[in-house]
Amino acid sequence: MSRLFAVLMAGGSGTRFWPASRARRPKQLLPLGGGDPLLVRTSRRLAGLIPPDRQMVVTGARHIDAVRALLPEVPPEQIVGEPQGRDTAACVGLSAVLAERIDPDAIVVAMPSDHVIEPEERFRGHLAAAATALTEHPESILVFGIEPDRPATGFGYLRCGEKLPDVDGCPLHRLEAFVEKPDATRAQLMLDQGGHLWNAGLFAFRPATLIDAYRTHLPHMLPGLQRIAAAWGRDEFEPILAHEFPKLEKTSIDFGVMEKIEGALLMPLSLQWDDVGAWSALPRLREADEDGNVTDGDVVALEATGNILAAPTGGVVAVRGIDDLVVVHTADATLVCRRDDAEGVKQITEALKARGLERFL
Amino acid sequence: MSRLFAVLMAGGSGTRFWPASRARRPKQLLPLGGGDPLLVRTSRRLAGLIPPDRQMVVTGARHIDAVRALLPEVPPEQIVGEPQGRDTAACVGLSAVLAERIDPDAIVVAMPSDHVIEPEERFRGHLAAAATALTEHPESILVFGIEPDRPATGFGYLRCGEKLPDVDGCPLHRLEAFVEKPDATRAQLMLDQGGHLWNAGLFAFRPATLIDAYRTHLPHMLPGLQRIAAAWGRDEFEPILAHEFPKLEKTSIDFGVMEKIEGALLMPLSLQWDDVGAWSALPRLREADEDGNVTDGDVVALEATGNILAAPTGGVVAVRGIDDLVVVHTADATLVCRRDDAEGVKQITEALKARGLERFL
Repeated sequence: MSRLFAVLMAGGSGTRFWPASRARRPKQLLPLGGGDPLLVRTSRRLAGLIPPDRQMVVTGARHIDAVRALLPEVPPEQIVGEPQGRDTAACVGLSAVLAERIDPDAIVVAMPSDHVIEPEERFRGHLAAAATALTEHPESILVFGIEPDRPATGFGYLRCGEKLPDVDGCPLHRLEAFVEKPDATRAQLMLDQGGHLWNAGLFAFRPATLIDAYRTHLPHMLPGLQRIAAAWGRDEFEPILAHEFPKLEKTSIDFGVMEKIEGALLMPLSLQWDDVGAWSALPRLREADEDGNVTDGDVVALEATGNILAAPTGGVVAVRGIDDLVVVHTADATLVCRRDDAEGVKQITEALKARGLERFL
Repeated sequence: MSRLFAVLMAGGSGTRFWPASRARRPKQLLPLGGGDPLLVRTSRRLAGLIPPDRQMVVTGARHIDAVRALLPEVPPEQIVGEPQGRDTAACVGLSAVLAERIDPDAIVVAMPSDHVIEPEERFRGHLAAAATALTEHPESILVFGIEPDRPATGFGYLRCGEKLPDVDGCPLHRLEAFVEKPDATRAQLMLDQGGHLWNAGLFAFRPATLIDAYRTHLPHMLPGLQRIAAAWGRDEFEPILAHEFPKLEKTSIDFGVMEKIEGALLMPLSLQWDDVGAWSALPRLREADEDGNVTDGDVVALEATGNILAAPTGGVVAVRGIDDLVVVHTADATLVCRRDDAEGVKQITEALKARGLERFL
């Protein structure tokens, strides 16, 4: 079996956790819920199977120092900074060409760095099984799908095709189709039907296979990526990355590659998964107190129930007589919205921009 | 007519405006509502009648530098710092003995430094009339009472006694009695009856008269006060103040003196008066926007009505979908409570203390 190699995609700017997350301090670097940053938890979750020296992080160039400080066991040259965000096709393509240089026989698993997945042991079992599957199907790309537990409309779905023999006790299918984020009715239908999994952006591949897929579907991206890979480990890596990367097409890996390839594999993950997509997800990271308030940092809550109250970067949140709100304090901003207001933070960050208050973003 | 001399009492610690007001930055020094600090407005309100060099400020010792910076035209030696808070009898007694040294023939008007009074011209007219009254009644202390416009339960009341002839067009009474803060029924009764005014802590006196009253009712306080006054203007003033002041009895001027004296005068003030006692008073300092939100500092309010939203010391408050709340942001604290929750801030500051979070007070 080829050895696993992990790529942690940590390029998000994380406005959904405003005001805690900022352009300079995205969600994956925040100690959300009071523990280690999600990026650190993601790296540690892998470590029992894929040691830190077999991990790579692709993040924003401005976050390189922070990431290197958070993950001292990941070799510094495997923490790569995108000069600007070019969406996931550029990010995954970059990691494929770099992984090929580091270990051409590796099985690469690429995943977001800001999700919560439990139990970790089972997750690692699935990754190992995926490696076995890709050893048996070396020309395939494998996509992981999350078994849905509710008719979520916030994710795309993956439709299971032909059932293949289990691998190391894990089920395996052909991937039949990508399904765009559904409306509520369609989401319920898929949940009732079965055979549809959430697309959480986790997949596995041999570098050569993914590079072949780019050659077929995104051929114009390959020369630039290969020039970057050729410079890796040399002094000119940074300037060449800075020169080539911004010219790459800005498209998603799903749209640019995954939806177009034939013969992809789909491995269902039946475990607890959370993309921690908004403040309202904090209760899934931290238990509520007896009044139903979920708190992070120094908080005083009097006659208050069902709130999410966070001072994750210091300071204090003090409330009385409020229910079912989100209150977040940082040194230069306070957010208050309803807990069920899924659009609250997005609308607020857009309003800040519109009113010339970008300095608070 | 003796010349007026003003004493601005600025000793409060101002916890009611937490988190904007702090032990180190009390309400009277804050630019509440976006304008000048209330202390500055109080000084300026007097200036047309009592110039800054005839004003004295008694504040907390730790605030002396801040007050001198805010009021550069008040002679620095007339900005006196209490080494510790000893309630109003000590504060007013101190100002009486100091005023006697500065101008024994003065008519002193003593008042809180954190109230809003309008129209200012009419207020100055009342002060001038009070001086006339005290020239005619040199042995009296004059208390100002505010004509109530609602059955407030948050203030003590003054009961009007015998009607005396108007002075300079201003009505004048004997003061019949002090009435403690009433319950709602009693407050409504007094409002219906008439003849009851709010006690706003404004009064006027000749220094010798007040000192005589102390000699009668608080005789043990006088030697210490006189030792302080004797040192005023000399190098040993500060050490003597620091030595003597903390030994003074801690009692209120109302309880210790005013309620015990005979023949006090009562002058009704029929004007707009506000003690700006809590965040819920902010709408009386600043107009609401079309959604009924009163804002102070950088604020973004989306689908939100009737809120008081303040970032008075910098930063931004951003809210969506909330109504009738108070949200205050400072660098190290956020307060959220209901606008009609008169006890909110008090309960919160007590809870902070109880939980070892005094560093945020």
